[in-house]
Amino acid sequence: MRAVVVGATGYAGQEVVKILARHPEFEIVALTSSRQQQEPVSDIFPYLSRGPSVFVDPKDLSDMEFDWVFSCQGPKQATPYFFEWIERGAKIVDLSADFRFQDIKVYEQAYGSHPAPELLALAKAGYADDPTMDYDNAMRILGNPGCYPTAFYAAVAPLIAQGQSLPLVIVDGKSGVSGAGRAPREHLMMAEMVENVTPYNDPGKHRHTFEMEAVTGQTVVFQPHLMPMARGMELTIYIPNSSLSANSVVELWQDYYDGNAFITVLSPGQKPQTRRVRDTNRIELGVSADERSGTLVLYSALDNLQKGAAGQAVQHVNRWMNWPMELGLE
Amino acid sequence: MRAVVVGATGYAGQEVVKILARHPEFEIVALTSSRQQQEPVSDIFPYLSRGPSVFVDPKDLSDMEFDWVFSCQGPKQATPYFFEWIERGAKIVDLSADFRFQDIKVYEQAYGSHPAPELLALAKAGYADDPTMDYDNAMRILGNPGCYPTAFYAAVAPLIAQGQSLPLVIVDGKSGVSGAGRAPREHLMMAEMVENVTPYNDPGKHRHTFEMEAVTGQTVVFQPHLMPMARGMELTIYIPNSSLSANSVVELWQDYYDGNAFITVLSPGQKPQTRRVRDTNRIELGVSADERSGTLVLYSALDNLQKGAAGQAVQHVNRWMNWPMELGLE
Amino acid sequence: MRAVVVGATGYAGQEVVKILARHPEFEIVALTSSRQQQEPVSDIFPYLSRGPSVFVDPKDLSDMEFDWVFSCQGPKQATPYFFEWIERGAKIVDLSADFRFQDIKVYEQAYGSHPAPELLALAKAGYADDPTMDYDNAMRILGNPGCYPTAFYAAVAPLIAQGQSLPLVIVDGKSGVSGAGRAPREHLMMAEMVENVTPYNDPGKHRHTFEMEAVTGQTVVFQPHLMPMARGMELTIYIPNSSLSANSVVELWQDYYDGNAFITVLSPGQKPQTRRVRDTNRIELGVSADERSGTLVLYSALDNLQKGAAGQAVQHVNRWMNWPMELGLE
Amino acid sequence: MRAVVVGATGYAGQEVVKILARHPEFEIVALTSSRQQQEPVSDIFPYLSRGPSVFVDPKDLSDMEFDWVFSCQGPKQATPYFFEWIERGAKIVDLSADFRFQDIKVYEQAYGSHPAPELLALAKAGYADDPTMDYDNAMRILGNPGCYPTAFYAAVAPLIAQGQSLPLVIVDGKSGVSGAGRAPREHLMMAEMVENVTPYNDPGKHRHTFEMEAVTGQTVVFQPHLMPMARGMELTIYIPNSSLSANSVVELWQDYYDGNAFITVLSPGQKPQTRRVRDTNRIELGVSADERSGTLVLYSALDNLQKGAAGQAVQHVNRWMNWPMELGLE
Repeated sequence: MRAVVVGATGYAGQEVVKILARHPEFEIVALTSSRQQQEPVSDIFPYLSRGPSVFVDPKDLSDMEFDWVFSCQGPKQATPYFFEWIERGAKIVDLSADFRFQDIKVYEQAYGSHPAPELLALAKAGYADDPTMDYDNAMRILGNPGCYPTAFYAAVAPLIAQGQSLPLVIVDGKSGVSGAGRAPREHLMMAEMVENVTPYNDPGKHRHTFEMEAVTGQTVVFQPHLMPMARGMELTIYIPNSSLSANSVVELWQDYYDGNAFITVLSPGQKPQTRRVRDTNRIELGVSADERSGTLVLYSALDNLQKGAAGQAVQHVNRWMNWPMELGLE
Repeated sequence: MRAVVVGATGYAGQEVVKILARHPEFEIVALTSSRQQQEPVSDIFPYLSRGPSVFVDPKDLSDMEFDWVFSCQGPKQATPYFFEWIERGAKIVDLSADFRFQDIKVYEQAYGSHPAPELLALAKAGYADDPTMDYDNAMRILGNPGCYPTAFYAAVAPLIAQGQSLPLVIVDGKSGVSGAGRAPREHLMMAEMVENVTPYNDPGKHRHTFEMEAVTGQTVVFQPHLMPMARGMELTIYIPNSSLSANSVVELWQDYYDGNAFITVLSPGQKPQTRRVRDTNRIELGVSADERSGTLVLYSALDNLQKGAAGQAVQHVNRWMNWPMELGLE
Repeated sequence: MRAVVVGATGYAGQEVVKILARHPEFEIVALTSSRQQQEPVSDIFPYLSRGPSVFVDPKDLSDMEFDWVFSCQGPKQATPYFFEWIERGAKIVDLSADFRFQDIKVYEQAYGSHPAPELLALAKAGYADDPTMDYDNAMRILGNPGCYPTAFYAAVAPLIAQGQSLPLVIVDGKSGVSGAGRAPREHLMMAEMVENVTPYNDPGKHRHTFEMEAVTGQTVVFQPHLMPMARGMELTIYIPNSSLSANSVVELWQDYYDGNAFITVLSPGQKPQTRRVRDTNRIELGVSADERSGTLVLYSALDNLQKGAAGQAVQHVNRWMNWPMELGLE
Repeated sequence: MRAVVVGATGYAGQEVVKILARHPEFEIVALTSSRQQQEPVSDIFPYLSRGPSVFVDPKDLSDMEFDWVFSCQGPKQATPYFFEWIERGAKIVDLSADFRFQDIKVYEQAYGSHPAPELLALAKAGYADDPTMDYDNAMRILGNPGCYPTAFYAAVAPLIAQGQSLPLVIVDGKSGVSGAGRAPREHLMMAEMVENVTPYNDPGKHRHTFEMEAVTGQTVVFQPHLMPMARGMELTIYIPNSSLSANSVVELWQDYYDGNAFITVLSPGQKPQTRRVRDTNRIELGVSADERSGTLVLYSALDNLQKGAAGQAVQHVNRWMNWPMELGLE
């Protein structure tokens, strides 16, 4: 399969390239970059022995043949090209937010006007670890989820599937700085972030809140924080007034993710660590029940660039193509 | 004033020494250390130009004259010596947990049997930023609070004082590793904690929970996390079903801490950063109100070794002696 | 091939397990650990879906069948078992220092008496990137080199091979803390190493100096430093009185490592970064010539746990077995 | 004394403000910032209870009265204002490089044309720890040295003063990222620098080389490296063909810095740590002699923003005014 990575020099794009380079079914035929156009690919990917030699512009793709596009730029940037690429037969995994919402009204609330509403009918959004996800024949675009919602989904979806209602969920999110992208900004500099922990955004204002609320169908109080590290993300999810025991949550998770090697369910008492999932496509899930207050506490840790972006994208393609889900991701 | 620091080579003890060395009213006359007894003081404090030359044992203090003891070892370790020190006229600031609770039953729940219950009558616990704290003549021991409770108190006490009831408070705590002390343990090593964020303890099981619950008089769901940094602490405090606006909380805080240079109240929209309070005795407070869910969110950041331990201890003494509160701490 | 990892819970051992788990020719049949004996393997390796369930003692291996042993404990610890394992037909890659020196006198200078001098005749030491390395039929033990010497060899060996004499070489070594192992020690704790850079050992006293001097045949001035990071190593190598130009060094390197995908030769002006080689088996090499002083400066960066230990071990086995050198390491 | 800090929001400027705020002889009357003009001072300095309320432009100073200017912008930026400020009676400590060289030709080699050569006659450069430094009456501008040269001077000057010739000195410099300033650039971001060590510049090309060569009067091979930390700097200085013993260097240092509380001379065998000098105006010096090769190795560690910039600037003023050298810096 001939793959193109659009936005290959951003952090998610770099990670897609790294995975495709070792994936047995893919050959990288083009890499685009707005910031490093016409610069040597070896500047960013010294380990790539085959493939394109310079970064190109998305426009330059009109001369090329390819089967898959991994689109890794920010919202609205590459989407206008999707018409042409689909017409020429390509399938697209979109890592921007443009195809994460079935309901265009929700998209508009979070991101403003949609760059290509006509394409929504060809697109499907979902989580690669969702056992019920259906990759049907009409699909041409896969809307890859956000990093925080992926960690949230993993912990909460099995409870929803079993019929739990979660009227109030409080999500304390903790993320390494790579989640904010590669464009230089002062508050992301090493000299500012060493020995620094800080909340950012007001609760409920981060745009990933919409994706989380689509999981529960109810209000989610989501407060993200920046951590003094590059990669990794941990959510601590507080569910007041819950009667579920820690053991029953463990069982729900084990059933829901049966056979999924990417989900590690920890025993009550154990806690996830972002270090252990770094550079992997795995999620670690843990749970405690605070009996004194009736509060259930869930923990979910992943690598924001792998499972939270590039790894999940490839996992989606593996499932879409009926390849083993772990191909290129072990 | 002649001061002794007991447990001077632990992280809190080191910080006490650093502050006393520049405090105009103190002279350090002895430093004890269980781990580095009889070793040169200059190994740990190369900048100390005056004072003792080697670390001694608490037993060796019986030959010496001193006015103040800053007791920085863990619970129960130095407390048996307090009888003699008090008899000889010294006042004691205790940074272990032994004198944090007026009610011995609460102490026993958290720490087991008390090493010197007879001394509780001579002791008083409290927060150095509490404007109502009364340093009466009978006091001989000041029970210095824990680091997490200090950050919690700062944010929540003004609401309690104004009459708010807080039946459910969820506290997501984030701390640098120095809070776990200087004794080498595997999970605290650099190679384990780089790029690592992890919850620890089950909610409500950390012993500081008891101190927090003494502030609100109700159940607190407290979940601490280790951060990939040495120093600093941030609490994000979720209060569901609150009708307080962000602006009204700002006003409550400003009134309560009027004239206290150690409390920085941020405007709604601004967020505390642990880096900005590092190596200071300050606390940064911030607030957001999530109107959609009726959840009030408070943020409190401090340096766990300064305001969370050594700085607060000296601030207490400054108030106790009617010196300017900022002496040696600016 | 059935593989055993001895000392699987140390940092190098953990890395060997990670590589073998994705290596198509290996099946892990046993993992030993002195510190976590009989504890579940999933505590350290949650991602291992197959293989042993608990860590065992090296003694327990006498009941098992296996083809390869990766011995990852410190010097002298596992070596006494090698007699039995070899007798039973196994080949051994030794990551301790016990088989790094052909000359037992050099070993004794560096490490004291040898635990099994009789085995030296069955052993061979060498660098996996050495194109002249010969894996002959008599070999039963491969002595895997140290991390610093591996980075040193990569930069310097091609100059030696071409006939350069290097009478004075000054090596400034910079390493992440994982190189010091997993046993908890105070100076390796996060709270001590954040924002800390410090030289350690006197020059020429680090035991890896002997391995470096075996490369040049002359005195090497080697000064190692601890860096505030977990993984990664960079050597800056100063060669006074050299007439080589930067371009000629680039050519020497390219010739020597022709076809070796693990060596990235940077152009003059470019500099290696430890981050780019983290979690890889690659080495980045760079060079500058200071014409004013006639000093040649070489830079060599690698991951101390991969190329500096586990990755090189597997690369050796790949070459030994005439498998593609990159198998399991891409 | 009324002080103005020009460039107060850069890293060195922030540090000057922090020191002046606790210095008993100074009152801050204005803070300028090109990047945050007219923004509230409390955004950057929440702890400043007195002083100016917004950042202004250097132009705005023409209406104000002041005695001292700490000029912290980059080379050539604020220097054109110096004529007016001097005319109005102010003394200036310049932290840019503009007044570090008595010889304008050396300045031009390093920085191009000088912005105000007429002022050189009123200026003097030097190190605040130089016991021979003479603050004469004609001086109006003090040229504060660079950070690397300060660490270099501290270790090497006493040897030069005693008559040692140092024909070849190799300096391996290691610095935290704050040395590169506060302007956002990609290679300084947290996501790029975590777990990263990298050389930068070719040897001898860093502009601080000129300052170092002014100390020895001979060629210096200087190779700087970026460290994964915010603050701190360590130099390892290799002097081949030296017959000095470690003990004799210790004695030379102790004699030269007799009575200077800012210089900590470590015993042979001990090594400096950047963590121990962080946020201080101290330098730690260590030494080893490699007898096998006749190479002397010196180690020098300091905080690049304190002793390497702001602290040294204030120390200079203290000496200039005949105040105790430690005033505001203890």
